[in-house]
Amino acid sequence: MSVVGVDIGGTKIAAALVAADGALAGPVLRCPTPAAEGPAAVLQAAADLARRAASSSPGATPVACGVGTAGAVDADGRVTHATGSLPGWRGTDVRAALEAALFMPVTVHNDVHAMAVAETRHGAAAGARDALVVAAGTGIGGAVVASGALVRGRHGLAGSVGHLPAAAALGRPCGCGAVDHVESYAAGPAIAALYARAAGLGEVPTLEATATAARSGDAAAREAIALAARVLGACLAAAATLLDPDVVVLGGGVLGLGEPFVASVTAAMRAASLPGAPDVPLHTTAFGQAAVLTGAALLAA
Amino acid sequence: MSVVGVDIGGTKIAAALVAADGALAGPVLRCPTPAAEGPAAVLQAAADLARRAASSSPGATPVACGVGTAGAVDADGRVTHATGSLPGWRGTDVRAALEAALFMPVTVHNDVHAMAVAETRHGAAAGARDALVVAAGTGIGGAVVASGALVRGRHGLAGSVGHLPAAAALGRPCGCGAVDHVESYAAGPAIAALYARAAGLGEVPTLEATATAARSGDAAAREAIALAARVLGACLAAAATLLDPDVVVLGGGVLGLGEPFVASVTAAMRAASLPGAPDVPLHTTAFGQAAVLTGAALLAA
Repeated sequence: MSVVGVDIGGTKIAAALVAADGALAGPVLRCPTPAAEGPAAVLQAAADLARRAASSSPGATPVACGVGTAGAVDADGRVTHATGSLPGWRGTDVRAALEAALFMPVTVHNDVHAMAVAETRHGAAAGARDALVVAAGTGIGGAVVASGALVRGRHGLAGSVGHLPAAAALGRPCGCGAVDHVESYAAGPAIAALYARAAGLGEVPTLEATATAARSGDAAAREAIALAARVLGACLAAAATLLDPDVVVLGGGVLGLGEPFVASVTAAMRAASLPGAPDVPLHTTAFGQAAVLTGAALLAA
Repeated sequence: MSVVGVDIGGTKIAAALVAADGALAGPVLRCPTPAAEGPAAVLQAAADLARRAASSSPGATPVACGVGTAGAVDADGRVTHATGSLPGWRGTDVRAALEAALFMPVTVHNDVHAMAVAETRHGAAAGARDALVVAAGTGIGGAVVASGALVRGRHGLAGSVGHLPAAAALGRPCGCGAVDHVESYAAGPAIAALYARAAGLGEVPTLEATATAARSGDAAAREAIALAARVLGACLAAAATLLDPDVVVLGGGVLGLGEPFVASVTAAMRAASLPGAPDVPLHTTAFGQAAVLTGAALLAA
């Protein structure tokens, strides 16, 4: 038995056939997200890619489709909150649209919620009863797994670690409208923006360029990355204090900053953790870029 | 069928017969906790009180005993962390000691974890799938209920909201050894200590005296209470951002500060909550002082 897994992000859509044990049963197909063209175009692109994935392996006939998407999703598969990366996405009935296009049952979850299911069942949090999974990239999302089950929360918003208060108070704006949230310091664009401000750059560089500058000794780039690690580590410590999880899993584009960044996050997490409590292990994602579509497929199976 | 519920706190022990539906099936018996005499004396006092509760209702023969105690408790009923209010309590095998004394099965949980079960099944969070329950008194404890089940966490520490970072940075010490935790500002003794410092009092008053001073217009007392409300409200907002619960329930001695305090906590929680997310209702405990023993009994039934 196989299922089509789909990952709808702000910049790309990915889809693949996934087996019941979470293994890929076909190639991972990708296309750009036509975000600027609006929800109907995004749904069309996702349906086209899902159809191609469904027929990508001779003999395999998928029985369902699981979708992980940016934004918060209610139990009916409708987007209840979304950020500016997908204009108009809020209110979109992803489930109904894709069921009509694909002629198979579709389930829809938040992308990091889906990622957490993949990591908990077969990845970096395998065997964990309680886990916190965080993806720090363009934004910062998270997911809570408690007693072996994904916690959606009343409005599908559980795990929103990006909107916890940051252990820094420079008055940086957050995409949600508040200031000084974790996402204001530790998301990729936030790190690059802090570097650009401190270095007096004319425009905000990419995270990759920021990382390159830091490796070549640029003090402003190094400090922006160090601040992100402190903020993210303190946030993970606070979440761990609240949840006492078996493991914390970190994924997303910030992993491109390399092992020293992860080591700094871990050190900041240890420094802010409950005195006397055993250390909570911090692991990096096992599924990498296939985590969301794999978890979405597992949730649909 | 009835069960003996026992509440072991730092200053008093309470016990009562509890029916399967959470209703009291006998009187609530109380005695002081002989904390200074050490764990053996505390266990002896708890066993004596439990025995009296067990025979407090003619015809009722309890089949088990449930204990809620200050401190973190592992799955075997052994205390893994405790504060200074119960010296030597860490490492105590509460379950084994009480089973030997009472000749019936005993289960042991953290006191606020037990409270959360009472509130979720039959109290202020009845019907909730996901809930956060917080008790702010001598210390501040909490409990997370996710998908209808109590989250213990790997080390029994889940729900430790008192040790989240405070939205204030006056360098106040926390009982855990860190500084500027929520408990450093919003626990009863912390509120009174902040008042004493600001007013230049020779000794720290009780929380009741602090409340009386505030009501009579004492600016320092009012500010200490207002600061506690801001810190506690911001903490509840952060926890709600992470968990997206159906409801937050507040109990403990700080409720003695009255309805204006709860209103201030609610306002601070709203101010710090995720923009655009629906308000999470904040309710006060339905079981009051019987919450811990009732929940402990329900967990044992």
